[in-house]
Amino acid sequence: MPEEPSIRRVKDPQALLRHIQELLDRQAVVANLVERSPMQRHELVQSLVARQQSVELGRQIAQLHPADAALVLENLPLDRRLQLWALVEPARRGPVLLEVSDAVREGLIEALGDTEILHAAQDLEADELAYLIPQLPEGLAPELLGAREAEDRAQVQQAMDFPEGTVGSLMRFDVLTAREDTSLDAVLRYLRRRGDLPGDTGVCMVVDRAMQLRGVLPLKALLVNPGATEAGEVMERDPLAFHTDDPLAGAAAAFERYGLISAPVVNAHGRLVGCLNVDEVLEYVKESSQRELLAQAGLPEDEDLYAPVIVSARNRWPWLALNLLIAFIASRVIGQFEGTIEKVVALASLMPIIANVGGNAGNQAMALMIRSLALNQLTEGRFRRLLSKEAMIGLLNGLVWGGVMAAVTWLLYGDAILAGVMLAAMILTLLMAVTTGVLVPYGLKAAGQDPALGSSILITGATDTLGFLIFLGLAALVFGG
Amino acid sequence: MPEEPSIRRVKDPQALLRHIQELLDRQAVVANLVERSPMQRHELVQSLVARQQSVELGRQIAQLHPADAALVLENLPLDRRLQLWALVEPARRGPVLLEVSDAVREGLIEALGDTEILHAAQDLEADELAYLIPQLPEGLAPELLGAREAEDRAQVQQAMDFPEGTVGSLMRFDVLTAREDTSLDAVLRYLRRRGDLPGDTGVCMVVDRAMQLRGVLPLKALLVNPGATEAGEVMERDPLAFHTDDPLAGAAAAFERYGLISAPVVNAHGRLVGCLNVDEVLEYVKESSQRELLAQAGLPEDEDLYAPVIVSARNRWPWLALNLLIAFIASRVIGQFEGTIEKVVALASLMPIIANVGGNAGNQAMALMIRSLALNQLTEGRFRRLLSKEAMIGLLNGLVWGGVMAAVTWLLYGDAILAGVMLAAMILTLLMAVTTGVLVPYGLKAAGQDPALGSSILITGATDTLGFLIFLGLAALVFGG
Repeated sequence: MPEEPSIRRVKDPQALLRHIQELLDRQAVVANLVERSPMQRHELVQSLVARQQSVELGRQIAQLHPADAALVLENLPLDRRLQLWALVEPARRGPVLLEVSDAVREGLIEALGDTEILHAAQDLEADELAYLIPQLPEGLAPELLGAREAEDRAQVQQAMDFPEGTVGSLMRFDVLTAREDTSLDAVLRYLRRRGDLPGDTGVCMVVDRAMQLRGVLPLKALLVNPGATEAGEVMERDPLAFHTDDPLAGAAAAFERYGLISAPVVNAHGRLVGCLNVDEVLEYVKESSQRELLAQAGLPEDEDLYAPVIVSARNRWPWLALNLLIAFIASRVIGQFEGTIEKVVALASLMPIIANVGGNAGNQAMALMIRSLALNQLTEGRFRRLLSKEAMIGLLNGLVWGGVMAAVTWLLYGDAILAGVMLAAMILTLLMAVTTGVLVPYGLKAAGQDPALGSSILITGATDTLGFLIFLGLAALVFGG
Repeated sequence: MPEEPSIRRVKDPQALLRHIQELLDRQAVVANLVERSPMQRHELVQSLVARQQSVELGRQIAQLHPADAALVLENLPLDRRLQLWALVEPARRGPVLLEVSDAVREGLIEALGDTEILHAAQDLEADELAYLIPQLPEGLAPELLGAREAEDRAQVQQAMDFPEGTVGSLMRFDVLTAREDTSLDAVLRYLRRRGDLPGDTGVCMVVDRAMQLRGVLPLKALLVNPGATEAGEVMERDPLAFHTDDPLAGAAAAFERYGLISAPVVNAHGRLVGCLNVDEVLEYVKESSQRELLAQAGLPEDEDLYAPVIVSARNRWPWLALNLLIAFIASRVIGQFEGTIEKVVALASLMPIIANVGGNAGNQAMALMIRSLALNQLTEGRFRRLLSKEAMIGLLNGLVWGGVMAAVTWLLYGDAILAGVMLAAMILTLLMAVTTGVLVPYGLKAAGQDPALGSSILITGATDTLGFLIFLGLAALVFGG
């Protein structure tokens, strides 16, 4: 962009990180010398060098894209992070704050005084400010809003009211609009006078006097058509428009299916209020998938790599506690059969096999189910069909792999009855596991929950407990105890 | 787009799916009647109705975006899928084939004759054809390529040679270019004459005579600057350009960090060869995350929901077999301690707790590690730091939760020594688990593998086996057996 000629973009953030780290190391060495030998005659020289290095670091930081500055900050231990943060120009701190993760943002904001925060936030757009405000010190919001024009202030308020996960929470307010009878030349003249494109979008929205959406004019239509053409003639009619309260997941899927760059957003009255852009959608998709990966392991959204051990350890407690509870229940199930195990101690060796294979089969069915739910593939009729298909698969795989394990058991322990118990338990466990794998995500979805969160632990808990119950229960029937 | 005014785009693919399903149901009823009662006098009327319904279905399909047509086809049982596929206009089959999943595409291609395939593929762009060719009947490639112009043919060949997962494999060849001394007016005149924008990108690439990339001219620069301006004056210098063999994952991360819409792609000699667009990147990111979700459960890339049971069951065999093998090893570890278990049968009840919590802690460390690797956050120094931090977390959590479980064990079994074994085993197991959780993904990455694939099963296998070994080994030391 001509107005920011010095911003570097990098393909390899690793190299960037190493480079900044080296600069910091070098400065730390010099700063250390200054501190440790205050009486030396090199003092002045050294503090000069330290200052020089700070200037060099500041220069490097100033050249970084806010997203890269955020990346560097996230990857520095706390002391260095704050040292570097102090070198970021006050006016550039706002965009950097938008880019860092929640966990890191908190610490960066704490390090700033009120005036610095006001300075950092003053140039942000309405949607950006709305995103930041909940994490800022409480007293500052009125002052921040007061400094803005009425329309802008109303937009910030609006943006804060859209629930997370809705289109409204991610849309931009700044949109280029035209009327149907506007000529393309008039649009071009307006753009040249303005010298900029609002919101960096690839489209111009066509609206009527009441701001009702009439169509969408891709910028390429401006370029390839004669200037006298009216917007209404070349606009795309009935464009795909989102409501502010549409779920983002659905909007992201539509962006992907249709290769959209920008889409209009309307409110409940059909009034154009903003647009949703592909760059925000891409970020949303990426973040959702990462959140899902972490959530499956029971971790909160993000964890500062450099948080103190006690903070990180505590982050994992709820999930560990839940797991312990589930394992404890499974353990009590086994406890009921200790008499049988005393009789046939081989059961103790064999039972983890049942639990393991059950958990595995359940998680496979679950993964397919979650994908189907995410791809919007499941009507009720198809759900029943899927359930019966999975049951067939469970039965088939139970026969095949139960047969294999029964043969192995027979070879190992020379006990045909034990092998029979193994076969029966494998079949029943696999049937139970795939059914659970299908039903749990479906149930969570029906209850309005995200099926990707929590499905795994529920399924593993169920397959462990029921797997032990099936195997040891069958064994108790056969061997007594 | 003005040239395809009748294509509908939908926010809710579920509703679309239900609608088509209803049409198919209605047609099936009528068609059934025609078949079953060939001697009735209503025959003619009914076959007319059936034909009418087919026409209506065809009309509906013709209005669908190729991505939606693909979605509908994927969600129909095999017979109906082929029935509907036959109704898709020959020329529109190419784009639909590009959109369906690999598993479904195979069946659709099999249903077409050679002439139909040639017809479907003839209007595809070079990169699209290259994507399709490997799945087409072998004999057809020469004919398909022969029908194209030399340059086009060379591009298809090139695109097929780029390995999967590289920028080259996803780039488009068709790019708008200009020289530095071209005036913006000249670019506009060219676009108006052409009446279209090559490749639908948001930028114009600025190159010299040797096609070396000089800069990038965002289309908005065309719009907001006076026509006499030269491209070189307003272009973005030193733009972020990708090499054809850059990994897509890194390119996608850059698109996300910088909010890119389109980026130039150069070959090893710095020659501009194409561009990478955000719509492709978005699709790549979405597909990667879904593949990861499935791969974690050991499922191949995609599975046709309507594949026969035996095919779906077999898809899960490799993973089930691997799991069985690992569970079997764990089982043999327990087998070594059957003497001890016979003495203290409570061990059998308690051992799943150790394995479960170990697996859980290992997977948490793994998820954080995979995220760090994906975000490019790990230099070697930071890796060591992370490892020692995780070890501290493991130790701390082992003390806390091992203490809890030791207390519970004491209460349940009134055996202080058994409680002590539990405490020691929990600490050691958690330490072992987090270390494994950090080392396994790092090792896989260092070995050039995707750490997200396979990490989970390796870690669970290790924590199960070693967890049992630690717990029962300690018990054997204390209780003998």
